[in-house]
Amino acid sequence: MTNTDTTGLTRRDGDTPEKLRALADDAQRAAVAAELKAALDGPYAEARDAARALIDAKGLRADDTLPLDEARERTMSQLFDVLSTGSPRGSFRKDHGGTEDIGATLASLETVGGADLSLMVKAGVQWGLWGGAVENLGTDRHIPLIKDIMELRVPGSFGMTERGHGSDVQSLETTAVYDRATGEFVIHTPTPMAEKWYIGNAAKDATKAAVFCQLYTPAGDYEEPADASVPGSWGETHGVHCLVVDLRDAEGRVLPDVHVGDHMYKGGLKGVDNGTLRFDHVRVPRENLLNRFADVSEAGEYSSPIESDGARFFTMLGALIRGRITVGASAGSAARTSLAIATKYANKRRQFAADDSLPESKLIEHRKHRLRLIPLIAKSYALQTASNKLISRLNELETSIPDRTNMTKEQSADQRELEAHAAALKAANTTHATRTIQECREACGGAGYMAENLLTTFKDDSDVFTTFEGDNVVMIQLAAKELLTGFSREMGNLGPLEIVRFGLDNFGTLLKRRTAAEKIIQNLVDSVTDRETTSLFDPAYQVELLTEREDRLLMSLIRRIRPARKMSTEAAAALVDSCQDHMLSCAWAHVDRIVLETLLETESALPDSQAKKIMEQIRDVYVLDIINGNSGWYQEQNLLNGARTKAARAALNDLVDSLGPWSETLVDAFAVPASVLDVPLLEDVSDPTALTFRSVTNPAAGM
Amino acid sequence: MTNTDTTGLTRRDGDTPEKLRALADDAQRAAVAAELKAALDGPYAEARDAARALIDAKGLRADDTLPLDEARERTMSQLFDVLSTGSPRGSFRKDHGGTEDIGATLASLETVGGADLSLMVKAGVQWGLWGGAVENLGTDRHIPLIKDIMELRVPGSFGMTERGHGSDVQSLETTAVYDRATGEFVIHTPTPMAEKWYIGNAAKDATKAAVFCQLYTPAGDYEEPADASVPGSWGETHGVHCLVVDLRDAEGRVLPDVHVGDHMYKGGLKGVDNGTLRFDHVRVPRENLLNRFADVSEAGEYSSPIESDGARFFTMLGALIRGRITVGASAGSAARTSLAIATKYANKRRQFAADDSLPESKLIEHRKHRLRLIPLIAKSYALQTASNKLISRLNELETSIPDRTNMTKEQSADQRELEAHAAALKAANTTHATRTIQECREACGGAGYMAENLLTTFKDDSDVFTTFEGDNVVMIQLAAKELLTGFSREMGNLGPLEIVRFGLDNFGTLLKRRTAAEKIIQNLVDSVTDRETTSLFDPAYQVELLTEREDRLLMSLIRRIRPARKMSTEAAAALVDSCQDHMLSCAWAHVDRIVLETLLETESALPDSQAKKIMEQIRDVYVLDIINGNSGWYQEQNLLNGARTKAARAALNDLVDSLGPWSETLVDAFAVPASVLDVPLLEDVSDPTALTFRSVTNPAAGM
Repeated sequence: MTNTDTTGLTRRDGDTPEKLRALADDAQRAAVAAELKAALDGPYAEARDAARALIDAKGLRADDTLPLDEARERTMSQLFDVLSTGSPRGSFRKDHGGTEDIGATLASLETVGGADLSLMVKAGVQWGLWGGAVENLGTDRHIPLIKDIMELRVPGSFGMTERGHGSDVQSLETTAVYDRATGEFVIHTPTPMAEKWYIGNAAKDATKAAVFCQLYTPAGDYEEPADASVPGSWGETHGVHCLVVDLRDAEGRVLPDVHVGDHMYKGGLKGVDNGTLRFDHVRVPRENLLNRFADVSEAGEYSSPIESDGARFFTMLGALIRGRITVGASAGSAARTSLAIATKYANKRRQFAADDSLPESKLIEHRKHRLRLIPLIAKSYALQTASNKLISRLNELETSIPDRTNMTKEQSADQRELEAHAAALKAANTTHATRTIQECREACGGAGYMAENLLTTFKDDSDVFTTFEGDNVVMIQLAAKELLTGFSREMGNLGPLEIVRFGLDNFGTLLKRRTAAEKIIQNLVDSVTDRETTSLFDPAYQVELLTEREDRLLMSLIRRIRPARKMSTEAAAALVDSCQDHMLSCAWAHVDRIVLETLLETESALPDSQAKKIMEQIRDVYVLDIINGNSGWYQEQNLLNGARTKAARAALNDLVDSLGPWSETLVDAFAVPASVLDVPLLEDVSDPTALTFRSVTNPAAGM
Repeated sequence: MTNTDTTGLTRRDGDTPEKLRALADDAQRAAVAAELKAALDGPYAEARDAARALIDAKGLRADDTLPLDEARERTMSQLFDVLSTGSPRGSFRKDHGGTEDIGATLASLETVGGADLSLMVKAGVQWGLWGGAVENLGTDRHIPLIKDIMELRVPGSFGMTERGHGSDVQSLETTAVYDRATGEFVIHTPTPMAEKWYIGNAAKDATKAAVFCQLYTPAGDYEEPADASVPGSWGETHGVHCLVVDLRDAEGRVLPDVHVGDHMYKGGLKGVDNGTLRFDHVRVPRENLLNRFADVSEAGEYSSPIESDGARFFTMLGALIRGRITVGASAGSAARTSLAIATKYANKRRQFAADDSLPESKLIEHRKHRLRLIPLIAKSYALQTASNKLISRLNELETSIPDRTNMTKEQSADQRELEAHAAALKAANTTHATRTIQECREACGGAGYMAENLLTTFKDDSDVFTTFEGDNVVMIQLAAKELLTGFSREMGNLGPLEIVRFGLDNFGTLLKRRTAAEKIIQNLVDSVTDRETTSLFDPAYQVELLTEREDRLLMSLIRRIRPARKMSTEAAAALVDSCQDHMLSCAWAHVDRIVLETLLETESALPDSQAKKIMEQIRDVYVLDIINGNSGWYQEQNLLNGARTKAARAALNDLVDSLGPWSETLVDAFAVPASVLDVPLLEDVSDPTALTFRSVTNPAAGM
């Protein structure tokens, strides 16, 4: 695919995007927006629309200005509004009283996230994390509890993260030790670093928690070791397991020996009561162990259908990936709301005349402003198609493998790929959201900084998404790890170092898996005949450019780390660590490629129309933005010469010019609820008598 | 300077940085930190240390968790603490009761910004903007007022920005019309877009304001036009002028016909009471015109030593650039505090063992983590040297040109260059701060999101710095404009379009001005003998690489926009707009180069020592990070081939490895006050009995 043209002076044929048709009237624009909306809403349009209607009806919009207690109470009470739609029941099985429609539940929650991330997080903690843990790690004996959780009768917490162990959850320190004499587990926090931190719902509302602990079943009688804070003092752990622990009594009083701390103020998410948990030898009945993947008999015998502690733990985590998917999708949703606000403002606000003889321009009429917003809009489109795909695949997989202890090799690979994509897209969506909301805030100038215009609230609330439910650096590394192992179950439980030292012998057969887009993509790639003159707008060539980047980065990564196999542990660890950046680049290249594929798939499903033409240019912007961002690498690799990378830059400029007049239609397709867009920034000020102040300290005189 | 080596397989001699000496003991480290601190504090070490002592003594640290009213009251009362050091008096002339030490004032304010940006902004509004306007635009008749402002007896506002006119201040709409019959000016807000918005101090504390208005002196009697909202209804404006207007009476009651709005909650800066101002035919005495650059006689005759309205207005603005300088410097200061927190955390926090046989690593022991933090630390070093230089030059210039109406050609060029550098560094420092504080927040994981650890507060508070005191896009364009005109006074008042159409005939003589570093830099560049084998660590080669980028971008920009001279206004405007991105790249390249020069200057002043070796590597990191970020461009231009850009990437990796063990020393040199670093994130938890909660809802049982 090396490009040998070196003249570099003229852009070649086909390197200019077709200008979009002149502006249609309002009705035609609305029709285009509706078509694009349908493409973006994907299979869960109904659930999304129901959530939008709820947001408008109940005024579920973030409010960053409330005092802490009020914000928390508001969010808690809004959970009942969310429940009234029935959408939370979709993540529970029918025989548990649910509706088994996880896709609709996640799409609904994602939509709520576009209005208020506090509410989305609080709902995610209650039904996704807390409810999800009991539903997916528990068994029939936990069904009554599941029903209480589903119907919001038992608010609860998900007690995984510890102060000393955020991303490295296999090393959690909280202990659960079985006492044969009483048939109870003793839950204990042995060190300061073992305190459960940042736990949602814990500071105020949770009455129970799913607590992740190292599980011990001592052979003899329960006898406290001399120093419980010394690792290994309880003997051999069975690894991390999850137990239900009561936190508060019916009157909301914290129980004895449970110590709750309140994180109070955070960077955002004021409506979520995050807290800390410390357990001082708290006893819970044996039945509180969520025993789907492992159990302890009354006599204290441990049993599990999965032999390896690591494999068992990762199977448990695998059953909980919906949280990660929701976090990514909701961040994407917040980014779309922000883009809608900033883009509508840019189509409204006038400033600076180039010359006294000319009228002041709208912000969007400046190319620089288009270059700020439109590539971010394109990326939002692309990521949403990938998110939809991910949710659909989760839906399929959850239906096809009810019993995770007995997966076929193919199912296992599907599951691992799903996990890898969930991790990668979580990182991609949340990184995109942080960057996008910041850019939107700045693109609205001083008005963007006023809390009433919502952008700073979305910024504050979404900020933690880059680090919670898995730090993005760890998430993207996880994706890289799966790439290195070809999604094979056998190696999935190994750390990066172990993979390098024990798992990299099958380089030759490294599995290159494709998403379901495979056929469309393969047909496309086959259609490329002459690579040296192919246009940068050719979708097949675009796929090749992104695929080649992923492949080359992966292969060169393997070449770099392979020598580690023959090194000492220390030396191997140092080598792997020195390649961390390379590993991350590789995973990002992977994300870029799979996202392009879902975008193409969505595009190909559209009928020939104005909307499809727009979608094609959205895809061009998405790809050319990536190529521009990696133009150094493409030249180093002789995949593109300088003339081509310059052409790519010029083409991006042309594309934002073409899409500029359609920019408001592009964000209308996000279908942000009207009540969310009702911000002062977008109000009409053409009426000269509208000398309104948002908050007036002195309407007449004297204050 | 084209590099013709194309083998690209091995790194050439000299392309590996020397590893820094093994770690010294604590005393030696402290000595190195002290030497680096002296280099960074520059000529204003004393003022900075005094501010640090004040911060520790009075506990002047940001607190984002206070209710709005309390936060505002706290900040207002802290202004008196700042005044107690005397530092605000430095920005006033001795014959006005000041101490004429603007450099010390700015350095002190910058240091305060590293502890609390609300306080820095409130102080900046009071003494820098409000005081600065009266001091620099007023005359002897305003001296009593100046003394009241200086001593905080008259809190005031700076009423420039309007709802419809943020960056485009020449188009302000508020009118000041002279009434000969009474000898008064009538101040009026003719349209909703003419309301003064975002005005600091206005919502609560200001008793007066410096209000920027279009000035009119009707030939006949004062007679209200049929519709004052129609531009031109008052005849010809003299352009924008500044007048003092009373807002509140002695009891703090807003005066009749003045309407004050309260912006209440913003993205941050809770301690600053931003508000809106609307004037309904408010009358002020003729003497309230700040008449240094223009006056109106009792009879209503307008006079000014500067003929052109544009030139006069830019002269006024030129007298006010200290605000812009402070904003940039303070953002830099907030970035340094954040880096100190994140870097100390990274040297403390352990997580993940590569293998069970190895201990958990400190975050800083991962190369990826070093790559996240160390290039930002290096950039902070570089920008601080540039900031120091800027402050010194301001100090010199203010002393050498007391009368701005009569500058020599050389002084005028100096002034314009200073303005361009102030604008460019404002953009560079604030962009850097936004990126850096975000990265620091994320690098601290969940802990970084807790308000008590300050990072989210700095993020929220500094965020608006990218858009206030001039939006960064506008600022960096201003710098580009000055580059295009070679800092010539004649063209300084032209808009970008006018420059292109009327001012670009002197391409050939385009002035390439150098900072005072000139000689050092020239000697360096002369020492480069063989460009084809020169090491990337050679400072002369580094200067050439950055200079060449600036020059080529400037020349190609000129080539692109030159045809506009023969076009219609519309076509020329469109062409210039389409080059906006190019213009910005050019200005960023300019910033990168001038910052490298000040960094080199600072480095060259250090004695041969460990500190100097560290400083050299800081500079290498600064340059290589820029080269990596522009590797596509350098290859397109044949200035570096792919082998060299790869080597640059590898070299950056080596450098962060070399500097990693010194990272804590690097941030110790920022000398962040101990009380600011006293955050829970950095507390010692090695004591297992220290099971502390920051805020406990249930110390024993029951809540």
